[in-house]
Amino acid sequence: MNENNFAVIMAGGVGSRFWPMSQTVCPKQFIDILGTGKTLIRQTFERLNKLCSEKNIIVVTNKMYKNLVAEQLPEIPLNNILCEPCRRNTAPCICYAYNKILSVNENAQIIIAPSDHLILNEAKFIEVADYAMNTAAANDCLITLGITPSRPDTGYGYIQVDRDENRKINEKINKVKSFREKPDLEKAKEFLADGNYVWNAGIFIWSAKSIKAAFQKFLPEIDNSFAECRDIYNTDKETEFIDKVYYACQNISIDYGVMEKAENVYVYPTEFGWSDLGTWLSLFDISDKDDENNVTRGNILTFDTKNSIIRTTSTDKLIVVEGLDNYIIVDNNDKLLICNKSNEQRIKDIVSTVEDKFGDKYI
Amino acid sequence: MNENNFAVIMAGGVGSRFWPMSQTVCPKQFIDILGTGKTLIRQTFERLNKLCSEKNIIVVTNKMYKNLVAEQLPEIPLNNILCEPCRRNTAPCICYAYNKILSVNENAQIIIAPSDHLILNEAKFIEVADYAMNTAAANDCLITLGITPSRPDTGYGYIQVDRDENRKINEKINKVKSFREKPDLEKAKEFLADGNYVWNAGIFIWSAKSIKAAFQKFLPEIDNSFAECRDIYNTDKETEFIDKVYYACQNISIDYGVMEKAENVYVYPTEFGWSDLGTWLSLFDISDKDDENNVTRGNILTFDTKNSIIRTTSTDKLIVVEGLDNYIIVDNNDKLLICNKSNEQRIKDIVSTVEDKFGDKYI
Repeated sequence: MNENNFAVIMAGGVGSRFWPMSQTVCPKQFIDILGTGKTLIRQTFERLNKLCSEKNIIVVTNKMYKNLVAEQLPEIPLNNILCEPCRRNTAPCICYAYNKILSVNENAQIIIAPSDHLILNEAKFIEVADYAMNTAAANDCLITLGITPSRPDTGYGYIQVDRDENRKINEKINKVKSFREKPDLEKAKEFLADGNYVWNAGIFIWSAKSIKAAFQKFLPEIDNSFAECRDIYNTDKETEFIDKVYYACQNISIDYGVMEKAENVYVYPTEFGWSDLGTWLSLFDISDKDDENNVTRGNILTFDTKNSIIRTTSTDKLIVVEGLDNYIIVDNNDKLLICNKSNEQRIKDIVSTVEDKFGDKYI
Repeated sequence: MNENNFAVIMAGGVGSRFWPMSQTVCPKQFIDILGTGKTLIRQTFERLNKLCSEKNIIVVTNKMYKNLVAEQLPEIPLNNILCEPCRRNTAPCICYAYNKILSVNENAQIIIAPSDHLILNEAKFIEVADYAMNTAAANDCLITLGITPSRPDTGYGYIQVDRDENRKINEKINKVKSFREKPDLEKAKEFLADGNYVWNAGIFIWSAKSIKAAFQKFLPEIDNSFAECRDIYNTDKETEFIDKVYYACQNISIDYGVMEKAENVYVYPTEFGWSDLGTWLSLFDISDKDDENNVTRGNILTFDTKNSIIRTTSTDKLIVVEGLDNYIIVDNNDKLLICNKSNEQRIKDIVSTVEDKFGDKYI
């Protein structure tokens, strides 16, 4: 295994769209939401561990999840769990991670991956990631993985691939023509028909040097603040220093802050059974269905019920459903959600209302 | 209070149509299903206690509910709780009760009432029942209370009132022209428009002597079997004797076995805010609604949800419902039922399926 290969797992999200399964105290990445026996972050770790040794895998998470990460990934050194005191989007998170990596290895190439995505074809993912990391080691480039779309999904951002052979970095990796926000359905259909658009999977590959150079160009204040006291990394003072930096830090995404601005941005169009598992619908789509096209987990009895996702976390609970079509029914201890599957974008608002009404009791 | 006034509370039902709130181990009559702070049987007892002293109130129930009755009605003598070893419908239950009463009072008049009905206007009920008991004391008659219908309900049996003034027993109590089974909607509408049909409330008033004479005429075997050893009543041997009689006894209702055949059958057409609370729909109908016409109990948050009944027995549970119209949602510990309110007649079948699949775990 290449000792210069590093991985950064981003695990700070609260996953409110998966309420009531995902909660602030234990968000989606720490749950075995697929019923495979492994949590999503555990799956992510094991996948990346095929590219990097344990000691080269970094997790960036919120302070309150430090223990959850340590419990679920006992193989990685505690010092590799980077704690954010507050949420500042992806750019500060990535900046902290590469500065930390640079403090121990100047020649690192890094894969950045969310902790809560699904990848069905792991072998293909490893092949793609390995190829991209080798490319990043040899070139000053910022690579993102683009997923060939299978449907006009309006829940993902899209990347327009530049098909010009002369601008390709190598056989498989193209120049990016443009980044596109989540489209409406009509636009998504155009993207699909066009053939040059891929889903932005939020998985990045670059050398530590290249990403540092890009931050120096587009977000120098952020890089300076994390680089300022590089000798503090891996000492007792790291937490105190980072807390101060974070609170003062600009809140900005890596896409907006760097990727959409840099010149040396490339995309690897590929496909490895990927889903961001961002919503109940995406979980429904990738799950096995019963004869009535229901996805169930637990003791569930259905009558004239179809196209629904019905789950309970309790091994004892019996759920009987009669006469529903296209619903989400999730029972999690002291919380039960019943929601039309077509309206699941309302779940975020519902969670806000629950919080307004009951404080953090059910959040 | 008239010392010859007796009441018999019929409390043997299992209330499977109210699953999962009502269960075999604790059926509907033993539950505070209305949230008033009192169970239905307790309400029934307190109501009848205004007509009869505690020692004259008899409860007929299944053996397995003896302790529940004793706990909920501590005022009545244990000897007044008559235990059925098996279900044999209403005729044997009533026969046992009047024979038991006759063993202590030859001049009793008796009101028979189900344990699980709702009566909103108690004062009116007492007035009506008192009048009917006085009538029954002075005349050889079998009186049933008939409720003036407010809607074409297909869930109730109907009684056709004979309006002939010459055949009335007194000012308020008419002869019965016919008993009618639960009608279809068209028939129910005809009954309502006709004006001479009332709902059969299953509340009967008669003297012990009159009902005994009727049994001797129409169900002599049943009466003989319970009367056979009258000196055994109120002794140690009563249970053993009754168990034997019950198992051998014909399974038949009082309506079919006596009321539809006897000549001296009368009806008191009246109205006192009665419901048999036989179904979730009937509970919905008599309950207070929120602005969206929902009936809720517990921590319930609704979004675009209307005409539904949503309940949890847990004080801690939060139920969030989005996008439902006309549903029953009942969460009771290890059971959750979601059912279209229009299909609630399926609940009995659903309970059978649950029993087939899980035995008595959830029943």
